[in-house]
Amino acid sequence: MEEKFISRQTINFMLFEVLEIQNLSKFEYFSEYNKESLDMVLATVTKVAVDLMRPILREMDKNPPVYKNGNVTVHPAVGTFLKKFGEIGLISAHFSVEDGGQQLPYSIVAAINYICSAANYSLCVYPGLTSGAANLIVTFGSPELKEYYTPKMFSGEWQGTMALTEPEAGSSLSDIKTKAVPTGEGYYLIKGQKIFISAGTHNGVDNVINLMLARIEGAPAGVKGISLFVVPKLRGDGKGGLVSNDVICAGIEHKLGYRGSPITQLSMGENDDCHGWLVGEVNKGLSYMFQMMNEERINVGIGAAGIASAAYYDSLKYSEERLQGRPLNSKNPAESQCAIIEHPDVKRMLLFQKAISEGALSLALQVGKYIDLKHVCPPEDMEKYDLLLEFLTPIAKTYPSEYGILSTSTGLQILGGYGYCEDFNLELFFRDSRIHPIHEGTTGIQGLDVLGRKTTMKNGRAFTLFIDEIKICIGEAGKYESLKKYADKLNQAIDELQVTVKGLMSIAVKGNMEVFLSDATLYLDMVGIITIAWQWLMQAVCAEKQSAKSEDSALKNFYNSKIHTMKFFFKYELTKVKSISDILLDGEVLTAGIDNSIFID
Amino acid sequence: MEEKFISRQTINFMLFEVLEIQNLSKFEYFSEYNKESLDMVLATVTKVAVDLMRPILREMDKNPPVYKNGNVTVHPAVGTFLKKFGEIGLISAHFSVEDGGQQLPYSIVAAINYICSAANYSLCVYPGLTSGAANLIVTFGSPELKEYYTPKMFSGEWQGTMALTEPEAGSSLSDIKTKAVPTGEGYYLIKGQKIFISAGTHNGVDNVINLMLARIEGAPAGVKGISLFVVPKLRGDGKGGLVSNDVICAGIEHKLGYRGSPITQLSMGENDDCHGWLVGEVNKGLSYMFQMMNEERINVGIGAAGIASAAYYDSLKYSEERLQGRPLNSKNPAESQCAIIEHPDVKRMLLFQKAISEGALSLALQVGKYIDLKHVCPPEDMEKYDLLLEFLTPIAKTYPSEYGILSTSTGLQILGGYGYCEDFNLELFFRDSRIHPIHEGTTGIQGLDVLGRKTTMKNGRAFTLFIDEIKICIGEAGKYESLKKYADKLNQAIDELQVTVKGLMSIAVKGNMEVFLSDATLYLDMVGIITIAWQWLMQAVCAEKQSAKSEDSALKNFYNSKIHTMKFFFKYELTKVKSISDILLDGEVLTAGIDNSIFID
Repeated sequence: MEEKFISRQTINFMLFEVLEIQNLSKFEYFSEYNKESLDMVLATVTKVAVDLMRPILREMDKNPPVYKNGNVTVHPAVGTFLKKFGEIGLISAHFSVEDGGQQLPYSIVAAINYICSAANYSLCVYPGLTSGAANLIVTFGSPELKEYYTPKMFSGEWQGTMALTEPEAGSSLSDIKTKAVPTGEGYYLIKGQKIFISAGTHNGVDNVINLMLARIEGAPAGVKGISLFVVPKLRGDGKGGLVSNDVICAGIEHKLGYRGSPITQLSMGENDDCHGWLVGEVNKGLSYMFQMMNEERINVGIGAAGIASAAYYDSLKYSEERLQGRPLNSKNPAESQCAIIEHPDVKRMLLFQKAISEGALSLALQVGKYIDLKHVCPPEDMEKYDLLLEFLTPIAKTYPSEYGILSTSTGLQILGGYGYCEDFNLELFFRDSRIHPIHEGTTGIQGLDVLGRKTTMKNGRAFTLFIDEIKICIGEAGKYESLKKYADKLNQAIDELQVTVKGLMSIAVKGNMEVFLSDATLYLDMVGIITIAWQWLMQAVCAEKQSAKSEDSALKNFYNSKIHTMKFFFKYELTKVKSISDILLDGEVLTAGIDNSIFID
Repeated sequence: MEEKFISRQTINFMLFEVLEIQNLSKFEYFSEYNKESLDMVLATVTKVAVDLMRPILREMDKNPPVYKNGNVTVHPAVGTFLKKFGEIGLISAHFSVEDGGQQLPYSIVAAINYICSAANYSLCVYPGLTSGAANLIVTFGSPELKEYYTPKMFSGEWQGTMALTEPEAGSSLSDIKTKAVPTGEGYYLIKGQKIFISAGTHNGVDNVINLMLARIEGAPAGVKGISLFVVPKLRGDGKGGLVSNDVICAGIEHKLGYRGSPITQLSMGENDDCHGWLVGEVNKGLSYMFQMMNEERINVGIGAAGIASAAYYDSLKYSEERLQGRPLNSKNPAESQCAIIEHPDVKRMLLFQKAISEGALSLALQVGKYIDLKHVCPPEDMEKYDLLLEFLTPIAKTYPSEYGILSTSTGLQILGGYGYCEDFNLELFFRDSRIHPIHEGTTGIQGLDVLGRKTTMKNGRAFTLFIDEIKICIGEAGKYESLKKYADKLNQAIDELQVTVKGLMSIAVKGNMEVFLSDATLYLDMVGIITIAWQWLMQAVCAEKQSAKSEDSALKNFYNSKIHTMKFFFKYELTKVKSISDILLDGEVLTAGIDNSIFID
């Protein structure tokens, strides 16, 4: 690999040693796979990432999509790549064979997305969206919709999108206004406008299939009146051909980063000829869409982790090559300069990057494993995995997104002035990564979700299950003398979390939701740090175990690197949990309900 | 003002009510000024910022300097602006009348730089560099150099630069290689290369005067062998004209932000005809340059605060206008949407921005006041102000730089998807602000400075003076029942800081400087937060005092907004100090001296 942007060894360690994903093959559904075949899939994807994706990273950034007369021209590689990705079965990878897929575990799909995001995030978004859109059709759509749309989506010939946002309905989806009028002929007439639609139109595909939220005439106000439709750019003419479906691209956004992917404005029904096909039942659109949204939220986290990984390997390489300064213990100007990786401050920055990107990857794969287990587990376990996923999704989205920016920024800092220049990719990663706390639900929305819904849902059952999982890991770690200290530290953080939740609940029961939820973002940060600490402790337990079994010194070093990074995370990151708890438990109300005159001047 | 990017009311509050800068007029040197005349200067600058600087902010970003055949073409407004700035005396504002200046207090100059940075950071850098370069000539240069160069620098016809960095000498200035060979004819022959030189050449001026570090043949290795030279792009031909001085611009950088200002590579003496004039004494160049560097470091902090201010007002405006969602206590979809400023999470983000940008401004003006007092105080007080400045300079540089990025990023977040798009300025501020922890000494370098030099210097005298200043403020605040709680909290943070320093010193005395300094960056963060808390408490004390005297309700609201923001800073930021102290006192060594195999994979 010319430019290293991921570590196959680290991915395999997490998948096959920590999470033991290969054991999924004992379930009938995944029985075709074993460690070797899964590894081969990852090898294939890595080759695509290296050969097709990474070489055009800067090129796509420098030549963003161009809008003209309703058409959007993207980099010529987009079409080639989509077809290649489709051809090797990656767009439909985790769909059942029956539905045209490969029944690949989602944990492996998560690793695939990580590799591709690290190679070229803008490019990786195209097939990801198609996959999510197709999944909505497969899960909730009629057999006819499925039969007509999914083959060409899976082959990469047609693009899929999720079309939710409108000018007046971004975070507030209940305010969606796009209208759907029944015609009695099997379709609805759609009229309205959507904004910020990723890949809403482009010349790399033959058609675009929008999975769109709209309101059927006369539907109730709010989220209970939203339905889901398939609204293609071109619709079938009944004779095997395609005709225009009155979906017009009105423009694209010029963005800070993530420039290889067009973000479009769509206008439907300007000529009253936009057909939409209902997916599933009337007025259940938002709950359906949440399937795709949750999937995409997890993907956003993975994308952020991938970019953080790419940034880490770039700054690591630079720090090993760049000579500057001398060790602090021997400042003799007559000596030659040392590589900057020798400076403790640079080591600290590198370890921060490593701890974030690998910790975030670990969480993504963990979530993938829960998705897989939910799919194949006995019915009595399903609720458990379902609730764990409910609780972890906002965290898996937000932690990598927020800390991804910080760790990418840290990577840029390691390069000094060069990090600020376009000769290196760090500045590109810094721009690209800034999208993640925004799209698919802002961090603020995720905070409300994790505190306002997920922590309290089913009498706190999801939260309890989450704590239970961590306690199991703490129990395992406690068996190793070398890890006991860290097990105790995580246990203490759990205590702090529980005290914090208790304190917050005492506000909630008084009924002031505004005050209760005012610092939900900070609560999400606290839970996020604890979640990643759990993931690192799990890795450390496994590394201890494996290291004891190994004689190979390089391998022992590898395991030690994981244990060392865990220690780093516990010292430099987990320690912060106490302060966040102090803020959350401070009774002084300074935001909720405060008069806007505090912004006077 | 069409677009608000600063608050004159806030600036005046800090200058004339908190710091009482007008009282400087009791010193002979500043006796020409009073509150009214100083306010008039600020009004003039604000007009320039609004009329000349802000309108071309986006334009300059979109049309960065173009390099061709050694020439750099910048936006046509650069030349006009420099001449205007020179004409109204702003390039030489704080120079003595004798030296061609206006004897303006530096605290006012700091406010001027803040206003201009908030309007258009790239543009504001040009005169700032000229002023710093001229100051080196005035302070250390011969009367001849001063007489020849400064008039045209002050008039904006000639650009000044600081030329330190070389390909192998960025953070490590001791490795400078540019050579100076004495000729016996009053000048040296200069040969070498410089990189990352801001405004090192451009067509907005008639000449560029580089204040350049070089090594005289045979000089000792390291920092003790560096001398300072004036190396103009064009040199006088002795007949009143100018001829080429063999300084060639070899290229410019393409950067993430701060795009209106060219960062150049310079090559001196390719034809063995580059003349340089020694400034001051041989081998004292670095200590001289530190005058300019300290000035520029403070300016970097001010620039960061200015951008943070511009970002704050943009996101505040957006949050007041953008309707989205409903209050959490009344989620009725039939109700119309509320402005997002009503959401506690948005209020929290805005208050964070306000606390950072105004806290940073307050520190900048405080530092300005110390500079002024050092200039005019009786000799016995000089050391005090000098040491306070030594201690505060790395903080005044770094806190605004690091937190400026976070607060600008928070502003971007308030705008959601729009924040990521070029229709708004937030994405530009996000890019521009990322330079600040890098240029004029990275955050890592500032950390080493504040812990390794400033905290220990003169047996900890600078540190003690710093604590004393804060204690005075705590004493004042303790007199107000309403502020007592916050005074106690800051006192406790001071205790934590002193315990931390004691702990760190116990490592230092063992002689392992590598371990002692390994987390200097975190120490700098800790001291920075405490410094800003001090500034906020000072403002709150003043606001309490003034509010009690006032009957005007708008004014009372204004004072209350300052007290409220102080409370916010103490709850949400100062609380973090404890965790940082815990990390610094944790004895586990995870970076210094650790084998690089921890980065294996």
